[in-house]
Amino acid sequence: MKRNESGIASASGVLKQRFGERFQTGEAIRSQHGHTTTWIPTQAPDAVIFARSTEEVAEIVRTCAEHRVPVIPFGTGTSLEGHVNAPAGGICIDLSEMNAVVAVNAGDLDCRVQPGVTRQELNTHLRDMGLFFPIDPGANASLGGMAATRASGTNAVRYGTMKDNVLSVEAVMPDGSVVRTGQRARKSSAGYDLTRLLVGAEGTLGVITELTLRLQGIPESISSARCSFPSVRAACEAVMAVVQYGLPVARIELLDAQTVGAINAHSGLDLPATPLLLLEFHGTEAGVVEQAEIFGDLASEVGGTGFEAVTRAEDRNRLWQARHDAYWAMLALRPGCKAVATDVCVPISRLAEAVVAAQDKATELGLIAPIVGHAGDGNFHASLLLDMEDEQEVRHAEDYVSWLADLAISMEGTCTGEHGIGQGKQAYLSRELGDAVDVMGKIKHALDPQNIMNPGKILSSAT
Amino acid sequence: MKRNESGIASASGVLKQRFGERFQTGEAIRSQHGHTTTWIPTQAPDAVIFARSTEEVAEIVRTCAEHRVPVIPFGTGTSLEGHVNAPAGGICIDLSEMNAVVAVNAGDLDCRVQPGVTRQELNTHLRDMGLFFPIDPGANASLGGMAATRASGTNAVRYGTMKDNVLSVEAVMPDGSVVRTGQRARKSSAGYDLTRLLVGAEGTLGVITELTLRLQGIPESISSARCSFPSVRAACEAVMAVVQYGLPVARIELLDAQTVGAINAHSGLDLPATPLLLLEFHGTEAGVVEQAEIFGDLASEVGGTGFEAVTRAEDRNRLWQARHDAYWAMLALRPGCKAVATDVCVPISRLAEAVVAAQDKATELGLIAPIVGHAGDGNFHASLLLDMEDEQEVRHAEDYVSWLADLAISMEGTCTGEHGIGQGKQAYLSRELGDAVDVMGKIKHALDPQNIMNPGKILSSAT
Repeated sequence: MKRNESGIASASGVLKQRFGERFQTGEAIRSQHGHTTTWIPTQAPDAVIFARSTEEVAEIVRTCAEHRVPVIPFGTGTSLEGHVNAPAGGICIDLSEMNAVVAVNAGDLDCRVQPGVTRQELNTHLRDMGLFFPIDPGANASLGGMAATRASGTNAVRYGTMKDNVLSVEAVMPDGSVVRTGQRARKSSAGYDLTRLLVGAEGTLGVITELTLRLQGIPESISSARCSFPSVRAACEAVMAVVQYGLPVARIELLDAQTVGAINAHSGLDLPATPLLLLEFHGTEAGVVEQAEIFGDLASEVGGTGFEAVTRAEDRNRLWQARHDAYWAMLALRPGCKAVATDVCVPISRLAEAVVAAQDKATELGLIAPIVGHAGDGNFHASLLLDMEDEQEVRHAEDYVSWLADLAISMEGTCTGEHGIGQGKQAYLSRELGDAVDVMGKIKHALDPQNIMNPGKILSSAT
Repeated sequence: MKRNESGIASASGVLKQRFGERFQTGEAIRSQHGHTTTWIPTQAPDAVIFARSTEEVAEIVRTCAEHRVPVIPFGTGTSLEGHVNAPAGGICIDLSEMNAVVAVNAGDLDCRVQPGVTRQELNTHLRDMGLFFPIDPGANASLGGMAATRASGTNAVRYGTMKDNVLSVEAVMPDGSVVRTGQRARKSSAGYDLTRLLVGAEGTLGVITELTLRLQGIPESISSARCSFPSVRAACEAVMAVVQYGLPVARIELLDAQTVGAINAHSGLDLPATPLLLLEFHGTEAGVVEQAEIFGDLASEVGGTGFEAVTRAEDRNRLWQARHDAYWAMLALRPGCKAVATDVCVPISRLAEAVVAAQDKATELGLIAPIVGHAGDGNFHASLLLDMEDEQEVRHAEDYVSWLADLAISMEGTCTGEHGIGQGKQAYLSRELGDAVDVMGKIKHALDPQNIMNPGKILSSAT
């Protein structure tokens, strides 16, 4: 990807003049904004601008369009596939100062937020109103970034992903125009679904500058449950039973034996070192008790043991501690390592087979790769714990990632359930979707003929 | 919109040769395929081909592309805004013979179907497996058509619309290529959401030739409830209370006093002639009883009377008879009239205001327009009962439709909750979405530069 040196110089001159102190070119700040959380090398932008309004974003994009300079939107930088890298340089728009909750319409269960609001900030803002926003990727990501990558998390089995919870967006398009993809109706058949086109476009079609989000009422009651299983297959059979029963489980997380072992060691727990399911139920007081009981019955039919269900907040926290500690416990398996997360998603009926195959393949390649999964969606993450100095190990890890993507695709699944394509998964996108990628390319070219919007993400060959 | 006479003649020659008996040009069949169910005049295609496979659809589209001839996909012809009209002539592809349920994956709660399968056919097929597909527009529409118009219905408050229940599609694009937008993973972050782009595109970007759909387990128990209210405002307050409580109601339908009066007269019932809510709850046996009781409490707090909840199938059918008879009862208000359905959707907090204003406006214009609403979504239909011979009345009705669309837009709602834009709502689309319509135009032009795919729908000015 070629740098447009003169364009970058010209645009930088104009934007520095315009934004003064908010136009930053320091090494550290640039590097931090091209930082990727996995193994993809940092490609820093030429400058970072801290934007404060839609109008400012539009002004930056117009200037960059005029000089044919890349624009990279940045939320919290917690994406996992090189989404914020600047392979051809350009201007990074940091949206963290656009962090206002513009309006909450409690009666309609919706709100309008600027893109820099993080999910935790929003939930703190909403708590006293008895409302919450359910999408919870691991990081405290910005809502704009979560929309851009079509993020989800542990609650998706009940509440869906960002695609289901963004009612509409305001976005600055590649020509600097500002569009709004919808209003606040809970459903609409008014033309092409531009909301869902921009959600998941990873900033390659425009910069999201405001979001209208669906909210949920904080449930009257919550219960948590956990259950151990003799095998991954048994645990996945319990998940399928839950889904087929139609139990409206809010969360159903699978931890494989290696992960459970890591947690026992890290957090001083003494869980059976076998696959574990952790669940959460939302509903009325009687409802969540009933749901947990039904789950207990379904689980015991497939060999579940150690079933426990609780409703008091402190008991629930204790039960879920294993899940909350999982990331750090896994890292502690190999101090000094880098964790590289995979992210495939398969039909639930194939989940057991996929997880077991992923475990076996890691063993075969001599890799440590504990697995945590959003089992109700068929989405799981094998986290590769790597010594990045060991070239052979890194090569094996690359082979593993590629093999796993192909496995998921061969099972009618996807190479990415919630992390996105970015730079890291482009090779798998066409294996998964074939000619549909050409259609994406046509859309990209139609809306961004100069290829200035986050170039080199999703589509490698976009003109 | 100009007819390409020579292209149509050439393409027709080729296709007649190829499809023989399945290439039909009879007046009746053409007229039936350009028939619209409302007041938009019929614009028949030049020929109708009954396709039997994706390959055949691709062959037809390629031939039409070569000769620059419009292609109009046709399911059951029950769309409401002139979607199947052929304003510049062309070839209608009737997909009713592509009506196979290709596969049902009960363990994953999904299935693959051809586009001509109707929703009732699918549900008949699924019943013995304990599964159902929840989207229920009024008509027994084809699933391809339902996807194309982003249809919904009474269950959307719980199960979402077609956008939420189509996992992926196979489609023939305007150049005759065949793409598949995804596989069977329940969620994916793999590139642009082409599924959601084709769902709701009304056949203007391609012909859907197969759908992968999410299914639901038939609930263990169902309860139905009804409650009368002194005013539309009180009924809507009950709806808001339900939504805010987070009660997972499966259906919550509002019938205004005029509709209830019509039903009493038509079906020999003696419901109080005041606004009525009809509800349905899905869940466990204990769960649905609890839900109905909670609703009863919420309703009584805002003046609800005559609350009744039942679980036996025959009792539920009796309770819902009012809703099932609504369409015919409304028509009977004015024998010989034509019913023209409106379809706005507003934030729920504005629903009462919108419904009351819609009633008042109808009175002011001397129109009969009983209202039925999918209240939990803020979506309602005022059905104009018109004497189509009375020019002044038709003019008043046109004014009403336009006024109502503007009202919904001014309330941060949409001119169409579930019927789509077609030919009938194009004027409102740009009022609602402004410059976003230009973005739609760019996408249309990029994917269909010759404007052959269902031209003149959604976008009037597409090249």
